[in-house]
Amino acid sequence: MRNFEYHNPTRLVFGKGEIARLTQLAPRDKKIMITFGGGSVRRNGVYEQVKQALAGFDTVEFWGIEPNPSVETVRKAVAMGREHGVGFLLAVGGGSVLDGTKLIASALATPEVDPWQIVLKGKADAALPYASVMTLPATGSEMNNGAVISRHETQEKYPFYTSYPQFSILDPQVTFTLPPEQIANGLTDVYAHILEQYMTTPGQSRLMDRWAEGMLMELIELAPKIRVNPHDYDLMADFMLVAAMALNDMIRMGVTEDWATHMIGHELTALHGIAHGASLAIVFPATLRVLREQKRGKLLQYAERVWKITQGSEEDRVEEAIVRTEEFFRSLGQKTRLSEVGIGDETIERIATRFNEAHVAYGEAHNVTGDVARKILLAAR
Amino acid sequence: MRNFEYHNPTRLVFGKGEIARLTQLAPRDKKIMITFGGGSVRRNGVYEQVKQALAGFDTVEFWGIEPNPSVETVRKAVAMGREHGVGFLLAVGGGSVLDGTKLIASALATPEVDPWQIVLKGKADAALPYASVMTLPATGSEMNNGAVISRHETQEKYPFYTSYPQFSILDPQVTFTLPPEQIANGLTDVYAHILEQYMTTPGQSRLMDRWAEGMLMELIELAPKIRVNPHDYDLMADFMLVAAMALNDMIRMGVTEDWATHMIGHELTALHGIAHGASLAIVFPATLRVLREQKRGKLLQYAERVWKITQGSEEDRVEEAIVRTEEFFRSLGQKTRLSEVGIGDETIERIATRFNEAHVAYGEAHNVTGDVARKILLAAR
Repeated sequence: MRNFEYHNPTRLVFGKGEIARLTQLAPRDKKIMITFGGGSVRRNGVYEQVKQALAGFDTVEFWGIEPNPSVETVRKAVAMGREHGVGFLLAVGGGSVLDGTKLIASALATPEVDPWQIVLKGKADAALPYASVMTLPATGSEMNNGAVISRHETQEKYPFYTSYPQFSILDPQVTFTLPPEQIANGLTDVYAHILEQYMTTPGQSRLMDRWAEGMLMELIELAPKIRVNPHDYDLMADFMLVAAMALNDMIRMGVTEDWATHMIGHELTALHGIAHGASLAIVFPATLRVLREQKRGKLLQYAERVWKITQGSEEDRVEEAIVRTEEFFRSLGQKTRLSEVGIGDETIERIATRFNEAHVAYGEAHNVTGDVARKILLAAR
Repeated sequence: MRNFEYHNPTRLVFGKGEIARLTQLAPRDKKIMITFGGGSVRRNGVYEQVKQALAGFDTVEFWGIEPNPSVETVRKAVAMGREHGVGFLLAVGGGSVLDGTKLIASALATPEVDPWQIVLKGKADAALPYASVMTLPATGSEMNNGAVISRHETQEKYPFYTSYPQFSILDPQVTFTLPPEQIANGLTDVYAHILEQYMTTPGQSRLMDRWAEGMLMELIELAPKIRVNPHDYDLMADFMLVAAMALNDMIRMGVTEDWATHMIGHELTALHGIAHGASLAIVFPATLRVLREQKRGKLLQYAERVWKITQGSEEDRVEEAIVRTEEFFRSLGQKTRLSEVGIGDETIERIATRFNEAHVAYGEAHNVTGDVARKILLAAR
């Protein structure tokens, strides 16, 4: 096991009716900027619950943080925040609203730096305190210190790190109005988050292996049930909890991680606007195919423990585990090939060139260069 | 799933050589009381590492917190802490040293209250900041806000709650000098902690079920390996990590818990001085036998997922799961019957009477009264 440090100070408030807890949790001595996306919270009742809980608080609203939040939008919010002397931020929405808010909070605390410079540096030096009411089980942003920001003018998308949310409120009832494709993208995203932390070298930590495998098995069990009954409270509560736990540092203690698939997926989103979850469904099976030798030990353990594949040669079991993974994404309604979403070799070359020119090498073994990314994308055609 | 709140602010610092991190983590502006047990830290090198890391800090030492720490010892430490104007506590040792330190920290912050009153109230109103260097994988005290304190003069032992450790440093190398019976008691204690949170009603949270089952399977896999090779770093790191995660709120999100076995076990320790882990090995199989109908659904899931028992009638599978649990404790070298440790019916009656007179009703269903405790202890004869 590798040495590690774990420190996640976010307060998770989970369950029916808990949005009302905002009254106790939000600060009364600070101007609060409430940030929103495009307006779905007006239709599902979340906006009313938030306003009711914060009646009498000093608030200002910022609307319009888009999916794959952009630095262009963040700059507008930062200007508004400065104008109003904001001291606390509350993101109400999905992972994109929260990710954007993380950059707003960071930029408001470091006025001398342009927000995009924070993203390029990868790390904020300070941030205003912020919190969330999370409406979409997917990104795990509600309990971590990361965010991914896009820059439209240059078609770039990169992650950066800042402080953790002070608290996050998750009421599974708010998921009942989500469209099916958002649920599918969320399930894909959560499954991929777990794989990024799990699909490396076996036995670095038995606990981390067991916890990740338990979560993957749970998602495989949940997905078809949720499709049939997306308004079942306990199903959606299970999904919402596993989404938060999939990316809150709990399953990466003492182990190596990968994240090459995410970095390639971000390029597809930046260049073609493909939803994040959808991009991962395309890239992940191909990553496993191209890196099957490097990941053989873990693929065999994954085959046996998660998919209960015990027959056949090692090669057969590895292949079947990859096929089952792709089939799982397809069972969610995802496309898993670049050709299905109209992406051709020009984009593959563009991503390979971008990685090579930036001299990046992603993944657990720091070997996913532009050339390896090309192989992965070619395997995803 | 039940509504819940999760908030664990403890910083976990884990790995080889990490005791040196004290230099960065401990406060320089406060008088630090370092608390110890009987002196094993002098033999395993931990004392030297701590002193070296804290060279130049303002410290005072308190020695002699005993296994099953007593309020009598805590009172002495509190007097010393007042005399020296202590503002921060660092427990160096196992769960008992840390549990005692939690009460010292609480009593120092509330000088108007006798420490035993804090225990009887079950909750401290305040506490000085404190931290730990943990030397024994067992109680999980390193990452939670609970402690169990004994009062020798009345042979009582009760839990109470306070703030969380500010940080805990765990270096698996320090476990290499532990005597085998402490490792066995630790494995038993950790297994029992998980069972107390797991062995209730199935399906309240799929995630909590999967995580607990993964940990139980891990302990079953680890125990025989550790017996053969107690100086294997990765084995002991796995054990030390699972011990911390078994009682840090991570596997109780949204689910009911039991803890009746612990409350009965505490009585055996208070009356006969039996080690905590050893008491649980005796009581837990009997609790499962007496409450098998109430816990049938979870016992069947436990039989299948943890012990891979799939043959036979439901009744057979439940019985085999209980037998396997008792055999697991025996494989650690534990005795699992009261008669083996010389405890007879007089003690059983005394515990039943104590529970009945206090009108307590422990367990997930609040039905483990003195009469049910009597049945459990009779089943453990």
